[in-house]
Amino acid sequence: MKRITALVLAALVILAIGLAAAETADTSKAKYVFFFIGDGMSSPQTTAAQYYLGTRGNPDADTPMAAPLTFTQFPVSGQINTFDATSFAPDSASTATSMSTGHKTLSGSINVGFTQGEKGLVPDAEQPFKIITEYAKEASMKVGVITSVSLDHATPAAFYAKAPKRNAYYDIAVQGLTGGVVDFLGGGSYLQPTGPDKDQKDVLDVARENGFAVYNTREEIRAVDGNAGNVLAISPDLQDSSALPYEIDRLASNDGSLSLAEFTAAGIRAMEGNEKGFFMMVEGGKIDWAGHANDVGAVIYDIYALSDAVQVAVDFARSHPEDTLIVVTGDHETGGMTIGYAETGYDVHMDYLQNQKLSYVAFDRMLSDMAASQASFDDVMAAVAENYGLTREEGSALSLNARDISRLSAAYTFGMLPSSQRAGVTGPEEKLHYGGYNPVSVTASHILANKAGIDFSSYSHTGVSLPVYAVGAGAELFNGHYDNTQIFDRFMDAMGLAK
Amino acid sequence: MKRITALVLAALVILAIGLAAAETADTSKAKYVFFFIGDGMSSPQTTAAQYYLGTRGNPDADTPMAAPLTFTQFPVSGQINTFDATSFAPDSASTATSMSTGHKTLSGSINVGFTQGEKGLVPDAEQPFKIITEYAKEASMKVGVITSVSLDHATPAAFYAKAPKRNAYYDIAVQGLTGGVVDFLGGGSYLQPTGPDKDQKDVLDVARENGFAVYNTREEIRAVDGNAGNVLAISPDLQDSSALPYEIDRLASNDGSLSLAEFTAAGIRAMEGNEKGFFMMVEGGKIDWAGHANDVGAVIYDIYALSDAVQVAVDFARSHPEDTLIVVTGDHETGGMTIGYAETGYDVHMDYLQNQKLSYVAFDRMLSDMAASQASFDDVMAAVAENYGLTREEGSALSLNARDISRLSAAYTFGMLPSSQRAGVTGPEEKLHYGGYNPVSVTASHILANKAGIDFSSYSHTGVSLPVYAVGAGAELFNGHYDNTQIFDRFMDAMGLAK
Repeated sequence: MKRITALVLAALVILAIGLAAAETADTSKAKYVFFFIGDGMSSPQTTAAQYYLGTRGNPDADTPMAAPLTFTQFPVSGQINTFDATSFAPDSASTATSMSTGHKTLSGSINVGFTQGEKGLVPDAEQPFKIITEYAKEASMKVGVITSVSLDHATPAAFYAKAPKRNAYYDIAVQGLTGGVVDFLGGGSYLQPTGPDKDQKDVLDVARENGFAVYNTREEIRAVDGNAGNVLAISPDLQDSSALPYEIDRLASNDGSLSLAEFTAAGIRAMEGNEKGFFMMVEGGKIDWAGHANDVGAVIYDIYALSDAVQVAVDFARSHPEDTLIVVTGDHETGGMTIGYAETGYDVHMDYLQNQKLSYVAFDRMLSDMAASQASFDDVMAAVAENYGLTREEGSALSLNARDISRLSAAYTFGMLPSSQRAGVTGPEEKLHYGGYNPVSVTASHILANKAGIDFSSYSHTGVSLPVYAVGAGAELFNGHYDNTQIFDRFMDAMGLAK
Repeated sequence: MKRITALVLAALVILAIGLAAAETADTSKAKYVFFFIGDGMSSPQTTAAQYYLGTRGNPDADTPMAAPLTFTQFPVSGQINTFDATSFAPDSASTATSMSTGHKTLSGSINVGFTQGEKGLVPDAEQPFKIITEYAKEASMKVGVITSVSLDHATPAAFYAKAPKRNAYYDIAVQGLTGGVVDFLGGGSYLQPTGPDKDQKDVLDVARENGFAVYNTREEIRAVDGNAGNVLAISPDLQDSSALPYEIDRLASNDGSLSLAEFTAAGIRAMEGNEKGFFMMVEGGKIDWAGHANDVGAVIYDIYALSDAVQVAVDFARSHPEDTLIVVTGDHETGGMTIGYAETGYDVHMDYLQNQKLSYVAFDRMLSDMAASQASFDDVMAAVAENYGLTREEGSALSLNARDISRLSAAYTFGMLPSSQRAGVTGPEEKLHYGGYNPVSVTASHILANKAGIDFSSYSHTGVSLPVYAVGAGAELFNGHYDNTQIFDRFMDAMGLAK
């Protein structure tokens, strides 16, 4: 209930900000601009997060309730289409490019156009797009880029780099530290800190040589203030692929590691003293990763992490109600998530999800250890029971039926045994069942989600439209249903910047 | 391209209406109020309809495009949650009650509350809710109720009747004709015109005795004007369950049968002369039915039928730009539709859907005839090729692979043969595969959808939130993310009516 009470209080603050901005809508420009991107987040994800939060705080489990997230209380709600230059199911590079520059491009490209090659369309480094942060910088605004994943990942990269291929991680990282655009970089670390062949200058040294203070302890990052100058703040507590831990694991461990909200607060403290304000992009990057893995619990908790980060911006806006703009959206949907399943019909049981104790990554590691010690099927089933509530004992809502057990058994055979001992599961069905993930882990996720009445159609991105939420100066510009390239245009208008 | 050109012109009209209403936002009240409900329509459905329309009118099939629908161009976009008193996956009765009265109730109940019974919550006829149309009537507005399905169905019923159980069709029909609330009823017919036991007075006679002019020819309905008085207008061209034909079939037959847009126009002509204006609800009811059947082609074309009906309201608003309000939303999502599928990954091929020639209902009838004449599997496969483009010939994008053929073969065995000859498909898997629909028909739908990169998770309603679109007087009230009961409140505010 604590979270819900906090959200009710937040609602009053949001209302005040909305009214203050509305009163001065014709004259004020957005000076403090927050752009929150939930990677892979669309309506199914935000709705499930609202419903699960309502269920957790609800003493009467039979009465459905939607507890609001910070951003679902914003007064302005729009909608964007996300297809890119060649695909209805785009990637984070092309969609972030649309939002950061106003241009459609190829999946995989960051802030550059494309041309006709011999075998089809190819990225064209000779067609660089000017980034919204470059415009902001020219207007003497500070620029912050924050993410829960690595700082060289496609979404953050699109706010400071130009690269024909998103996987040019080292080059992208160096652009961010040498380009003179970004003042605050924070969150995860780098995927290739010394380059793809590990023979380049360490990016942390590149940072220092270019005037960045490099902080990589909790204490340093919690102490960032307006005297810090340029800041590169990297969490010392990374989980997978140089990213912050999944929020479900961070909360479970209660180990004091830095949250996305804390990085957002640090960025504000570093930049708020600037006379011309700032533009800050904050990405919840692991919502997408959890969606790829069809892990509904990890999706939902990482949306709470994003919501908490948005709350930091809302709290900041109390002091600057007339010239703060906060916009929250996604870049594309991931996983084809739905809140309804053929076998459960009209029954949706959000409360079942409380049985999930960890992310698929944390469970994968547990399973990897078990595989190394040649754990039995019974041992694995005990771990499934412990961490997902799925039990072979009859009579519980989460009792496994014969088909469930058969699926887990096949996953165990395929995923836990040495290849010499595998049998029973072969062929293209594996792709459909496991999508390249740990077979036992993704099967447990699927079974729990399906029992709760939730399903996923894909391990990839999908083409459904996304909600946009906005509050503050210029928020009304984000109303309506439009193309994702319009996000760039509307930010430019809100900030009073000309192309 | 004709449809796209028309939509571009429509965009200019919508812009003008939006500006006119905005200029007078503080003083004008909505006098001509349109409420369009796409039953079962959420973002996946509207996005797919935009993408398919963009694909059809696009000479370059490799460049994705979203062609706008009439309502996706509206300046105001909101979002609603749809759960009812006991379910995250509600029904059309409870959701329409939320929007027509501002109260949550039980699935299956229309405009009445509920109480604790011996075996759980039960509907309570002693707790009637006052309907928005009753308020409108008290304010001397005319009331119109139009639907593509039967007039006694849950959604239209919620705008004129109160019933503990939605299947009290005859009682509901009589309430609409005797209650003094509705001035114009139009669209499909009635499910039980002489009652459940066929021993009651025909509802058409009830209508006539209560001052309704009953029209049931195309000519009469196309000639309805302001002199008509109260009107009951029933299409002579009904397809299934007393409903208008699916739009995909209506367009294919080109038989001149009445469209939802024509009923909307007739309703306007009948009521526009009223000094105090009107409140008109128009339902696209078969979007939901097609969603239940996982028939993506029928879903998309019935959204076009709804969009065309909205266009009629937009055209009307040209003459009344300062006091017309048009709101478009759904009641719940149906089918758990997504635009992404595990086997196609990042590939979505909206153009493949052009191969679907008819609705599942039309194909079901064809299959029923074939079953009666003991058609062979080859005959059935020829029909599948003809109507869905799915072929056993290799080398086409829609070539059936071995697993597809196996699925169709199992469906043929289960669905087309007498039960004495069935083999191979038994048990609970049928529910998952066919959902109670014709096995061959739903399997063909699934295969075509999946090849296009579209999937469904359910044959029931789901819990995802819905987009809301609004233009005109008071449209800004429909912004933000809110509960579906707020639709009632915001209409009341827009019309200047007090509870």
